[in-house]
Amino acid sequence: MPAAAFTELAGRAREAATVLALATRATKDAALHAMADALLRAETEVLAANAGDVEAARGTGTPEHLLDRLRLDADRLAAMAQGLRDVAGLPDPVGEVVRGSTLANGLRLRQVRVPFGVVGIIYEARPNVTADAAGICLKSGNAVLLRGSSSALRSNTAVVAALRAGASSAGLPADVVQLLAGEGHESVKELMRARGLVDVLVPRGGAGLISSVVEESTVPVIETGVGNCHVYVDAAADLDMALRIVLNAKTHRTSVCNAAESLLVHADVADAFVPRVVAALQEAGVRIHGDAAFAAHDGVEPATEEDWGTEYLALEISAAVVPDLDAALRHVRRWSSAHSDAIVTDSAAAAERFVAEVDSAAVLVNASTRFTDGGEFGFGAEIGISTQKLHARGPMGLPEMTSTKYVVTGDGHTR
Amino acid sequence: MPAAAFTELAGRAREAATVLALATRATKDAALHAMADALLRAETEVLAANAGDVEAARGTGTPEHLLDRLRLDADRLAAMAQGLRDVAGLPDPVGEVVRGSTLANGLRLRQVRVPFGVVGIIYEARPNVTADAAGICLKSGNAVLLRGSSSALRSNTAVVAALRAGASSAGLPADVVQLLAGEGHESVKELMRARGLVDVLVPRGGAGLISSVVEESTVPVIETGVGNCHVYVDAAADLDMALRIVLNAKTHRTSVCNAAESLLVHADVADAFVPRVVAALQEAGVRIHGDAAFAAHDGVEPATEEDWGTEYLALEISAAVVPDLDAALRHVRRWSSAHSDAIVTDSAAAAERFVAEVDSAAVLVNASTRFTDGGEFGFGAEIGISTQKLHARGPMGLPEMTSTKYVVTGDGHTR
Repeated sequence: MPAAAFTELAGRAREAATVLALATRATKDAALHAMADALLRAETEVLAANAGDVEAARGTGTPEHLLDRLRLDADRLAAMAQGLRDVAGLPDPVGEVVRGSTLANGLRLRQVRVPFGVVGIIYEARPNVTADAAGICLKSGNAVLLRGSSSALRSNTAVVAALRAGASSAGLPADVVQLLAGEGHESVKELMRARGLVDVLVPRGGAGLISSVVEESTVPVIETGVGNCHVYVDAAADLDMALRIVLNAKTHRTSVCNAAESLLVHADVADAFVPRVVAALQEAGVRIHGDAAFAAHDGVEPATEEDWGTEYLALEISAAVVPDLDAALRHVRRWSSAHSDAIVTDSAAAAERFVAEVDSAAVLVNASTRFTDGGEFGFGAEIGISTQKLHARGPMGLPEMTSTKYVVTGDGHTR
Repeated sequence: MPAAAFTELAGRAREAATVLALATRATKDAALHAMADALLRAETEVLAANAGDVEAARGTGTPEHLLDRLRLDADRLAAMAQGLRDVAGLPDPVGEVVRGSTLANGLRLRQVRVPFGVVGIIYEARPNVTADAAGICLKSGNAVLLRGSSSALRSNTAVVAALRAGASSAGLPADVVQLLAGEGHESVKELMRARGLVDVLVPRGGAGLISSVVEESTVPVIETGVGNCHVYVDAAADLDMALRIVLNAKTHRTSVCNAAESLLVHADVADAFVPRVVAALQEAGVRIHGDAAFAAHDGVEPATEEDWGTEYLALEISAAVVPDLDAALRHVRRWSSAHSDAIVTDSAAAAERFVAEVDSAAVLVNASTRFTDGGEFGFGAEIGISTQKLHARGPMGLPEMTSTKYVVTGDGHTR
C-alpha cells in the first residue's frame, strides 16, 4: 500500500476516532449489538469467503491444524457475534475518574480515562480476532486499523464489511473499523512507521511477529503473549496437587501462551516426584526434555541449553531438578519470558519469596499457569496478555485500552 | 563507551535493581537521607567540580542564562539535599495493591505495584536533575543509569559519587545510581539500544533530544515535556480573569513546558479584549506574533504558519482571533503539542465541550497552564511531564515510575 493511501486511511480513522471518543455508552453498546446482528445476517457471505481462504490455504499445503484455526462455521460465527454482545455488557472505561481531589488552593483536579485514539492491531490466522479486536477497540472508544494475515484476507474482508455496516447503522462512522489489505508486509511497515497517525500498536501472534514489531516500530507498542512459563515444585509441595497442576498447565491446551513449558523440581522431593510426573506426562503424550535427573528415566530426552528458553506450544516440556529455592529463582530469572510462573508449595515463606522475587506479569501460587487470562481474571474480554512493563502488564481488558487526561478547574487561578 | 563496557555497567544496574526491588521503605528512606547527608558533606568537591564546568562552558562562549542553569551554589546544593529528604517523606508506591478480589472459583487475585527495574534518564544542563532523578528512581525501587549533558560532567560525577556513597552507607548497592560518562552521543546510543538491559528510558530536555530518542530507541520511552500550550478566551469569559491568566501563563516563567505559547480569542470579545491583552503583554515585554486582528495593533508582528506550532520558551506568543468555539477547537487540535491547554469561560457548556474535545495531557478551565506540574498537583516529586498516551500522561510522580504484576493464589486450582 502506498504511503499516501495509508495516510488517507489513517486520517479517516482519526476523524472517526474523534467522533467515537465523544459517543455515549448507549451509542457504543447499540453499535456493538448492530455489529453482531450484521455479522449473523452476513453468514452466507462470510462463510463463502472463509471457504475460499481455506481452499487456497489447503492448495498451498497448509497443515490441517492451521486450516482448523482459519476455518469458520455457523457456531464460530455465532460465538463471534456473542463476543460483541458480551463486550456491550461490560462497563464503559471512558470517562471513569481514576483519581480526583480539591487541591489546597481550591483547584479541582480529576484524572479521567480517555481513549487512545487510533489503535493498530497486527494479528495472525484466526478470523475471530477480527471481531473481538474491533469490539474491544470500539467499546474503549478507539478507532481500529486491523492488519490480519493475508491467508485470512477474504474472511476478514467479509467480517469487516459486516462490522462497518453495523457500526454505521447505529450512527457511528463506518471508519471506526478498517481493514488494511496491503500486499505482503508493506501494510505492516506502514503501520509501524505511522507515529502521530496511530497512537498504539498491539501485535498478536508468534514470537517472530512480536519481536519484529517491537524492534522496528516508531509507534508505541504493547508487546503481547510470548510465554515460556514455569511450574516449580517446591520441597514443601503437596505432590498430588503438584501433579495435577503440572498436567493441567502443560496439557489443558498447548497452543496458548499461558501453557507451562518448563518444570523445576526441588531436589528434596525429586525421588518421590520425578518418577510420578514423568509417568503421568508420558501417559498424556508429553515429550520430556530433561536434565540428568529426568533423563535417567526411559523415554526422556536430554535437554539442551536451548530447551530452557523454548516455548514449545506443543505436548513438550523441559524439566530439571534444582538443589534449592534459590536455584529455582535463578533459573526462572534467567529463562522465563516473564509471562506466568507458578510455585507449588505449602510453605508460606517459600511462596512469599517466589512471589517477591519472580518478576513476571503473573506469579501463581498453587494454581495452574493457565489462569493468566482476561476471562479467568473476570475482565470479560481481553485484547491480549502484555509481557511488557510499560502501561499494561498481564491480561489487558477494556481499561488497559485507554489513556487518561487531567482536567483542572479553577476560578481564575494563577501562580 | 564500547558495547561490552556498557553491558557490564547495565548488568551491575540489573543486579542492584534486584536487591533494591526487595528493599523495605525504611531502608530506602534511610538511603535517601544518607544521600542528602553525603551531598552536603561533599559541598567543597561538588562546587569545585561545578566551577570547572562553568569555567569550561564560559570558555566556549556559552551565554549567561545557560551558565546560570549549569551553576551550583551552597543554596542550590542544599535544595538538592532537601529534595531527597522530601522524596523520603512520600509514600512508597512499591507493594501497593492496585486492585484485588477473590474470583468465583476461590482464586485470590491481587495486582501489585513493582519497580520497572532499570531506568535510563537522558537530560540536559541542570545538575540538580541528577539528584532529583536518582531520588525518585531509588524510592520507586528502580536502579538508574543517568546520562547528563557533557557540559555538566564534572558536576554530575561529583554529585553521583556522593549519592553512591550515601546509598552504600545505608546498606544498598552503590550501583543503584550510575552515571554514563561516554564520549559524545555514544552513551546515549547505547542506552537507546539496550532493550532487555534497560526497562524504560525517560528523556528530559528540548524537543530535539526527545524526538531523536523517541524515533531511535528500541527501549520503551516515556516522552516528556514539549509544550505548545494554548489559552483560549471564550465569548463568555470574564475578561479581567482572562487577562490575569494569559499574563500568568505566558510570563510567570518562560523556559518551562507549561508556559503558554499561543492565545486564541473569540471574535465576540475581540474588540473588548484584544487591545487590553496586547497592551498588557507588551508592557510585560512579550513579543506578539499575531493574525490580522492582532497585527492591526502597533508593535504586533504578523504571525507566519510556523508560529502556530512554535514553543518559544521565551517572552513571545502567537495570537489569533477565532470566529467561534469550533474554530478554537480545530486550531488547538491542529497545533497543540497535547501538553496543557486552557479555556477561560463562564459558560458551562463551552467548558464542557473544551474539556471533552481537547485531547491533551491536561485541560484547564479558568486556570493558568502553569498548574500542570507534579508539585502543584500534590504529587510531591515529579520525574517529568509525559505528553504520550501510553503508561503515564501528565506529571509523573512515584507511582508512574512503577509497573505492576498479578499475584494469583490458589489451593491447587486447575482449569
